[in-house]
Amino acid sequence: MRIGVLTGGGDCPGLNAVIRAVVRKGVEVYGHEFVGFRNGWRGPIEGLTKPLGLDQVEDILTRGGTILGSSRTNPYKVEGGVDAIRATLADQGVDALVAIGGEDTLGVAKRLTDDGIGVVGVPKTIDNDLNATDYTFGFDTAVHIATEAIDRLRTTAESHHRALVVEVMGRHAGWIALHSGLAGGANVILTPEREFDIDQVVGWVERRFEREYAPIIVVAEGAVPKGGEAVLSHGEKDAFGHVRLGGVGNWLAEEIATRTGKESRAVVLGHVQRGGTPTAYDRVLATRFGLHAIDAVHDSDFGVMVALRGTDIVRVKLAEATAELKTVPASRYAEAEVFFG
Amino acid sequence: MRIGVLTGGGDCPGLNAVIRAVVRKGVEVYGHEFVGFRNGWRGPIEGLTKPLGLDQVEDILTRGGTILGSSRTNPYKVEGGVDAIRATLADQGVDALVAIGGEDTLGVAKRLTDDGIGVVGVPKTIDNDLNATDYTFGFDTAVHIATEAIDRLRTTAESHHRALVVEVMGRHAGWIALHSGLAGGANVILTPEREFDIDQVVGWVERRFEREYAPIIVVAEGAVPKGGEAVLSHGEKDAFGHVRLGGVGNWLAEEIATRTGKESRAVVLGHVQRGGTPTAYDRVLATRFGLHAIDAVHDSDFGVMVALRGTDIVRVKLAEATAELKTVPASRYAEAEVFFG
Amino acid sequence: MRIGVLTGGGDCPGLNAVIRAVVRKGVEVYGHEFVGFRNGWRGPIEGLTKPLGLDQVEDILTRGGTILGSSRTNPYKVEGGVDAIRATLADQGVDALVAIGGEDTLGVAKRLTDDGIGVVGVPKTIDNDLNATDYTFGFDTAVHIATEAIDRLRTTAESHHRALVVEVMGRHAGWIALHSGLAGGANVILTPEREFDIDQVVGWVERRFEREYAPIIVVAEGAVPKGGEAVLSHGEKDAFGHVRLGGVGNWLAEEIATRTGKESRAVVLGHVQRGGTPTAYDRVLATRFGLHAIDAVHDSDFGVMVALRGTDIVRVKLAEATAELKTVPASRYAEAEVFFG
Amino acid sequence: MRIGVLTGGGDCPGLNAVIRAVVRKGVEVYGHEFVGFRNGWRGPIEGLTKPLGLDQVEDILTRGGTILGSSRTNPYKVEGGVDAIRATLADQGVDALVAIGGEDTLGVAKRLTDDGIGVVGVPKTIDNDLNATDYTFGFDTAVHIATEAIDRLRTTAESHHRALVVEVMGRHAGWIALHSGLAGGANVILTPEREFDIDQVVGWVERRFEREYAPIIVVAEGAVPKGGEAVLSHGEKDAFGHVRLGGVGNWLAEEIATRTGKESRAVVLGHVQRGGTPTAYDRVLATRFGLHAIDAVHDSDFGVMVALRGTDIVRVKLAEATAELKTVPASRYAEAEVFFG
Repeated sequence: MRIGVLTGGGDCPGLNAVIRAVVRKGVEVYGHEFVGFRNGWRGPIEGLTKPLGLDQVEDILTRGGTILGSSRTNPYKVEGGVDAIRATLADQGVDALVAIGGEDTLGVAKRLTDDGIGVVGVPKTIDNDLNATDYTFGFDTAVHIATEAIDRLRTTAESHHRALVVEVMGRHAGWIALHSGLAGGANVILTPEREFDIDQVVGWVERRFEREYAPIIVVAEGAVPKGGEAVLSHGEKDAFGHVRLGGVGNWLAEEIATRTGKESRAVVLGHVQRGGTPTAYDRVLATRFGLHAIDAVHDSDFGVMVALRGTDIVRVKLAEATAELKTVPASRYAEAEVFFG
Repeated sequence: MRIGVLTGGGDCPGLNAVIRAVVRKGVEVYGHEFVGFRNGWRGPIEGLTKPLGLDQVEDILTRGGTILGSSRTNPYKVEGGVDAIRATLADQGVDALVAIGGEDTLGVAKRLTDDGIGVVGVPKTIDNDLNATDYTFGFDTAVHIATEAIDRLRTTAESHHRALVVEVMGRHAGWIALHSGLAGGANVILTPEREFDIDQVVGWVERRFEREYAPIIVVAEGAVPKGGEAVLSHGEKDAFGHVRLGGVGNWLAEEIATRTGKESRAVVLGHVQRGGTPTAYDRVLATRFGLHAIDAVHDSDFGVMVALRGTDIVRVKLAEATAELKTVPASRYAEAEVFFG
Repeated sequence: MRIGVLTGGGDCPGLNAVIRAVVRKGVEVYGHEFVGFRNGWRGPIEGLTKPLGLDQVEDILTRGGTILGSSRTNPYKVEGGVDAIRATLADQGVDALVAIGGEDTLGVAKRLTDDGIGVVGVPKTIDNDLNATDYTFGFDTAVHIATEAIDRLRTTAESHHRALVVEVMGRHAGWIALHSGLAGGANVILTPEREFDIDQVVGWVERRFEREYAPIIVVAEGAVPKGGEAVLSHGEKDAFGHVRLGGVGNWLAEEIATRTGKESRAVVLGHVQRGGTPTAYDRVLATRFGLHAIDAVHDSDFGVMVALRGTDIVRVKLAEATAELKTVPASRYAEAEVFFG
Repeated sequence: MRIGVLTGGGDCPGLNAVIRAVVRKGVEVYGHEFVGFRNGWRGPIEGLTKPLGLDQVEDILTRGGTILGSSRTNPYKVEGGVDAIRATLADQGVDALVAIGGEDTLGVAKRLTDDGIGVVGVPKTIDNDLNATDYTFGFDTAVHIATEAIDRLRTTAESHHRALVVEVMGRHAGWIALHSGLAGGANVILTPEREFDIDQVVGWVERRFEREYAPIIVVAEGAVPKGGEAVLSHGEKDAFGHVRLGGVGNWLAEEIATRTGKESRAVVLGHVQRGGTPTAYDRVLATRFGLHAIDAVHDSDFGVMVALRGTDIVRVKLAEATAELKTVPASRYAEAEVFFG
């Protein structure tokens, strides 16, 4: 067989580990050939290829990002996109695809399979919000980086008796906030799944100051105060004449400072969370995903993606995998609340 | 309730995170009181206590080791040990125990429960060889440290065209070798579960040299060549007049050098693997274990330990938990073999 | 002798290492006694003390922040401040002070010495902008953290063909930007010492994109475009209706995106740079500073601070030390320019 | 000009950073061409070359090891070695060499210059034992890695009330032991410069145990007890029937256990210290060395090496540079003794 590989959506530590495992097992165990498609679905649409063999994957296990590049192009939103893919695959003699990506990429993979193109998916989401798998690679790395940052910020907070707000990734799901907040010993964790009450947050912060410690507040970028987005007024001058910066993290730091009279600072971790070498956990998970994905291709078991269930890698239908967002359940949030204040 | 806490066996990153979670939830949610017993089962036998309240656990989440100290003392092997425990518990007004430890500690916990003392167990084994739980805390940290070492050793191996043997922990189970070997891109992984054939190992090493790369061999301390322990002659002089150092890692490096004529070095990671701050993964797991252990105590559900199943923390009977060693199954080892040579 | 110790100004990794070295040598070699003053100069003004002996410094070498707390209080700006210090010292039986801090703290130390109170200074500035010493502790840690962030951001930039702007500390001096930019392989480094030309920056960025790599721009928070601060309009809506965020990093990312048509992102590292455990380099430097500072106190050599010259720790007059800001000289900036574009 | 570059001796983090800086400035500022010679002096002797231009150095700044490979070959010990180098240089049209290495490599560079071949040296020694420069790259990385290991070992030592012996690199000079011992808070530091008294070491260890802390002993591999090497009997059985392992670290652990009756463990860090990505400090130093080395070549200022003096990079005669080993002076060792016991 000749198999195409592509990576779509936001980058994520572990993508290269998947690519390497797919190619190593494909070549050495099954004798398949590979071609890389560049920049997500743009690759097969526009015929952008890259050689992909043992040499290309030799040294990539530990590297962040993706050697294939990525994009958010969707062939179903590009005029003639699917036909262009069909033509490229025929032209390249490609029998099947391995598509590594998040909800959007896997959604396309599902539709292409329905349309007769054989695709196996590998789930990727730094936010850990895919329902069909216990974890995805990249998430552990993001939590690791956020936790290291919280560890560092704690000492500066304590020395200056300041509140420190750490804004982490998570637009629709609070997994990074929950795990890094638990691991970093945060005194408040705020997630997109439940609107927060700023009075309650300030209460926790004040209780912490009373005990002569410095409060750490971990907030997902998608968390929203009661009353909603409108409350997060950006670009306006506050009572002190300072322009309000964007983002819930900066908003929170300013609210806390205003309401408690204590110093408060925000740090927005941003893209640091999704770059660089993956943790050992993510390298193992990504490698196992890759090994099992090429097995599925070899079995011509298309329309599935690989998933982690306990310690096993299983195959699940793409239809099922992309059906629902996996958000932080109330029981998991309640665990963390023990440490608030 | 008044509850005693102790840690037994080898130390492990995450012990303090468990202690903190037990005490935080116990005090703040249930209103319990706590007393720390020092140095494993020696504590309740000899009445060695330590105050344990919110202040004592404030700053310990990120610290390796255990604030309670540890030992390998077994009350069933100490004359009058169990009676001494009974007396101490009565003296201290302690109603129940949380015992954090490995097979030995949990075995004692089970027998004590049978003998009428209420104990809840928390599993701890850096080697990940406890059957009843998907993972235990400390394992991810050990794998992380071993993987960082392999990453570093690769560049020195490549620059000098040397074989590098990395000996990691794992006397009876090869989990650390398997995961760090996969994560570090090892070219050979050797585990205690299967005797290895030195000729085959040398073959993989030579294949790697032929491709102009430097081979990395990850070996668990408990791995044994065919022919058994006897082959690992220590303290004798080899053909070059060098005294053979102890351990399978040093033995392998010498065999590879002799048989291939290439330079070869061994690094024995040793205790570095079990010290220092836990990874974020281990902090979250240890914290969740602690929260669920105190729930079990509060429910007077003794004779159980907490365990990870998928993403859930569950309770399992101690009898079941300590029944069998969890070794690396053939299917998991086969996954890794794809990358050998 | 009985000696007071205090830390002033922004916190900095290594402060605790200085305190430990001062106390260890003072107690064990010279037989002195110590008292800690809390929260910078507020401590001796308001009589806020903390016990400071061998036990208090046992475990603090590796910790960020300062166990004594800090503040920006200046006794010469507080009504009766100096008299209050005099009274506290008499009350506490304190013969001399060790003051660890930056320009402001050391400026006060100088004036107090002139006013008859014996003070020895230890220089602290994360920005490395004190003229009398080759380096100060904290700087290496800040550069280390910024470099790790740049390493991570590079892979995400490459995968998405994006420009990544990293804003680091440095209001008046560009040392952190220069060193982390060199260490991280930045394609543009912008410092407060020279106004930058946005057209030239965009030229470097475009040249980099043309070579199919992703540009990394490291910018000190105090860097200013030609035309000055006014150009950095914050809080206004740009052409796309987005509110302009504050800070030169965000401004640059937006300008680059607008002018090149490529994606661009900014990360503002902020307080992460000054927290957490010091690097080995900073622990050694801070420890040596502490050892030599207590020597100076023991010699009653007041009005001096310790300084690094080559590999030696020397004493310099505080008057000299605080005279001039150490900025990045043109020759050092020119070294880095080789790597631009 | 056409310039050859080679790396000799043991590998060291920062070699690639030097190569990159030499080539970047050579090509972009001076318009020179480059050729890489593989495996140290073997390269020009045997005509082993490697293309070396902007593309080859694009991605190597952060990587450990050396893309050119290394060896310990000495052309003055190879029959016809120097003539072979002459022939290769003529054949390749090479006008001058940049040789990056330690004492041996730089010694050859000196003799070749005397023999009419233009060489500029760049000093490299992980041990920091070259007299003519304040520091060399690689040293800071080695100290960083050793310190991280000590940090980890401390927690396991404390939990088990054990003595932990950490053997670090340094055959003839104790710089790594001194700096990592200071940075890690070691209770004993032993270096090759002064024979140690095992009774005194045991005294420090016991004093530490009495204070209820766990002693950490950092020992350079070249440290020797009074009475000399003969004392370090390897391969014999001790009183417990255990075979004595090689190395001063293992010997010390066994002696301490025997004499104190406490548990004791040794960790031999080995090659982990010299691999992997360089610290930011080493990347900056190595980069600056490379930039100044190519300046010297461009000036046809041969027979020199670059060196760090304070914060300046200067040129020193190779004759002077290799004259004497830089060992730890008594005054620096005395600083550390404050913390013993």
